[in-house]
Amino acid sequence: MTVDHFATRSRAALPLADRAADLVGSVIDSSTSLLAVQTHDIVRFAMGSPADEAVPLAEFRDIADKVIDHSSMTYGATEGEPVLLKALVEYLAGTSDPTSEERVTITAGGMQGLDLACKIFINPGDLVIVESPTYTNGSVTALSYGAELLEAPMDENGLIVEALPELVAAAGRIPKAIYTIPNFQNPSGTTLSLPRRHQLLELAHEWNSVIIDDDPYGLLRFEGEDLPSLQALSPGDPLLFSVRTFSKILAPGLRVGWVDTDPALRQLVINAKQAMDTCANVPAQHIVAEFIRRGGLDSHLAGLRTEYKRRKDSMQESLRRHLGDRVTTTDPEGGFFLWLTLQGEDARISTRKLFETALAEGVAFIPGPALSAGGKFDDALRLCFASTTPERAEEGIIRLRRAMDRELEALKGGGNA
Amino acid sequence: MTVDHFATRSRAALPLADRAADLVGSVIDSSTSLLAVQTHDIVRFAMGSPADEAVPLAEFRDIADKVIDHSSMTYGATEGEPVLLKALVEYLAGTSDPTSEERVTITAGGMQGLDLACKIFINPGDLVIVESPTYTNGSVTALSYGAELLEAPMDENGLIVEALPELVAAAGRIPKAIYTIPNFQNPSGTTLSLPRRHQLLELAHEWNSVIIDDDPYGLLRFEGEDLPSLQALSPGDPLLFSVRTFSKILAPGLRVGWVDTDPALRQLVINAKQAMDTCANVPAQHIVAEFIRRGGLDSHLAGLRTEYKRRKDSMQESLRRHLGDRVTTTDPEGGFFLWLTLQGEDARISTRKLFETALAEGVAFIPGPALSAGGKFDDALRLCFASTTPERAEEGIIRLRRAMDRELEALKGGGNA
Repeated sequence: MTVDHFATRSRAALPLADRAADLVGSVIDSSTSLLAVQTHDIVRFAMGSPADEAVPLAEFRDIADKVIDHSSMTYGATEGEPVLLKALVEYLAGTSDPTSEERVTITAGGMQGLDLACKIFINPGDLVIVESPTYTNGSVTALSYGAELLEAPMDENGLIVEALPELVAAAGRIPKAIYTIPNFQNPSGTTLSLPRRHQLLELAHEWNSVIIDDDPYGLLRFEGEDLPSLQALSPGDPLLFSVRTFSKILAPGLRVGWVDTDPALRQLVINAKQAMDTCANVPAQHIVAEFIRRGGLDSHLAGLRTEYKRRKDSMQESLRRHLGDRVTTTDPEGGFFLWLTLQGEDARISTRKLFETALAEGVAFIPGPALSAGGKFDDALRLCFASTTPERAEEGIIRLRRAMDRELEALKGGGNA
Repeated sequence: MTVDHFATRSRAALPLADRAADLVGSVIDSSTSLLAVQTHDIVRFAMGSPADEAVPLAEFRDIADKVIDHSSMTYGATEGEPVLLKALVEYLAGTSDPTSEERVTITAGGMQGLDLACKIFINPGDLVIVESPTYTNGSVTALSYGAELLEAPMDENGLIVEALPELVAAAGRIPKAIYTIPNFQNPSGTTLSLPRRHQLLELAHEWNSVIIDDDPYGLLRFEGEDLPSLQALSPGDPLLFSVRTFSKILAPGLRVGWVDTDPALRQLVINAKQAMDTCANVPAQHIVAEFIRRGGLDSHLAGLRTEYKRRKDSMQESLRRHLGDRVTTTDPEGGFFLWLTLQGEDARISTRKLFETALAEGVAFIPGPALSAGGKFDDALRLCFASTTPERAEEGIIRLRRAMDRELEALKGGGNA
């Protein structure tokens, strides 16, 4: 018996899935690899990493010594280690984002939360509203499920929710999902106002659209008053798929996060995660659980807030001192990021080109177009103020100015270089 | 402006993706949660976990204390930590499954390798050949991408490759992928013979089908001679997507594995992984790397092989002593699993029903139908011999006999209970 009667495919063409063309990867993540191989001194404003000094290494080592045992070295329950679920829910009860154990599934960081949301909700061709600019790793995940992205504008109060109906009318169809980062947005640093949170929930219900509510920074407010989370405003809402992580408040290397969903959806979340990775790293879950259980998270977060405010203020001051009115920036009340827009004749500089020059000068950032689904914002860039000390950050801003000077000179020289 | 002119969906129906119906979850993983809440004494033959005694806890604690530092607590490169890539490739050079650094991407265990394979190759409706019985977590992942599964029979030499052309002819289309576990297959324990390895590679090229080559147990051969891996038989083959893991040889809780693919495919693998979880847990990668670097893996594996052979032989002996000719089993030359088929009048017992009775008697296994895409093998079950000491395993087999006796009695009594 042969199969000669079937069409056979060319050896040259691999039988890839259609979605392979949509697996575009993350400019942000790739910059980790790019920067890792640079041998010269670089001030790193690019990655959204916590300050090295902010990671409680000594306590992690102490806890690791205790939690590395048989129970943490075998397979864990897909929904998460019971001790972590319990500690996390108890901790969150005292925050603006409370939840309950039957709503939580532990994930491998926030990215897996986004993967789960898309796996459960996104069909190829579905429309997903994303903020402009946005955390493109989130939109890359949606693209990997075949989503079509619709960029929605932002202002100093976050996503301009009142602009969505017109955008949706122009698109001619309702969105399957709205992807938002409500607090200290990545990359803009802005926060969704309370009235807009209510409006967003209303629109989601009008359209029966899921809100993918990605909030890695909510516990890192260092100015102003906490706003209630979307979950807190609409408890038990089945259209809210909330993505959280310990990456920004403890350590990204641990890859521990969680999603907060309608309990009716939780079995589907667990099923989807079983097809992804069985369970999150078990000792890391125990390290986080024990850190919370020992009562260290509150003072740890208080310390982070104080330090990150100091770093944000200091970076703003460095920017004023060295770049003056050549740039404007947002002024976040928490989180990790400043969004910087070039002004005047500097606005002619392409931040994609500036990236190369700046790297040569010894400073790294993420250019605006890497943070927009449609490659907008070539006159803007993202700076992470969290991971660099004020002294080192000032040096980085001086290098940034040098790079801008070089780019501007090249432009004035006719750009025929 | 309103959107009244758009159709709005009913509040009751969540806007789930079409694939949500295919997110069926894993019976194997769910049994972890089920067994975790049992309060009575249970001999656990169900999970494919290494022996507790096999995990080098003291060395892991010592290494953790050293590797928990700033570099392991931040984001890692998506392709994996350079120190692990290097140590792994150097180690594998001395095995029947050599590779090179440009072929390897570190994953969150073997499951993520399967997720990556499906993400890159499987379109909804694609035909995927799976072994019968198979590791259903693999087929569950394929289902989550909308694959249609075609079960192919096995014998004592693994997948009956020569049966595939007829099966494919009957299906009327060529498979997009062939999912095989060539060594000490989960759950049957059988190994794909060398001639069949060659035939499988030929067929894959004839059909331009990807071979998803899942080999968690290859380094755990305790009898007979190592066979070259499919990768070793066809170096640089773009149709081989090989999935490997440290779960069975070090510790599943670490969630560290790797995939071995054509370097031309690697950027796509990295892009896909970036949309999943950014990178694998970083300290776990450093723990594995340092364990290998210290030279401990060879003697560790030698110890595992000796102990797992002892446990396999002892379980066979217990089965002969307590169940005699009421069952037949496969006789694996490595790995974790025995496949047990009920004989004679015991073959009337449903192992799905037996599972409940056995749990009450204090012994757990995975019933055959949970290990078949089509729910076959209701007269068979999987026993993990690796995780239980011989003394404890004998007690488990005695309990299994009691459960079989009860089931048989119920059947004889007319089954009207």
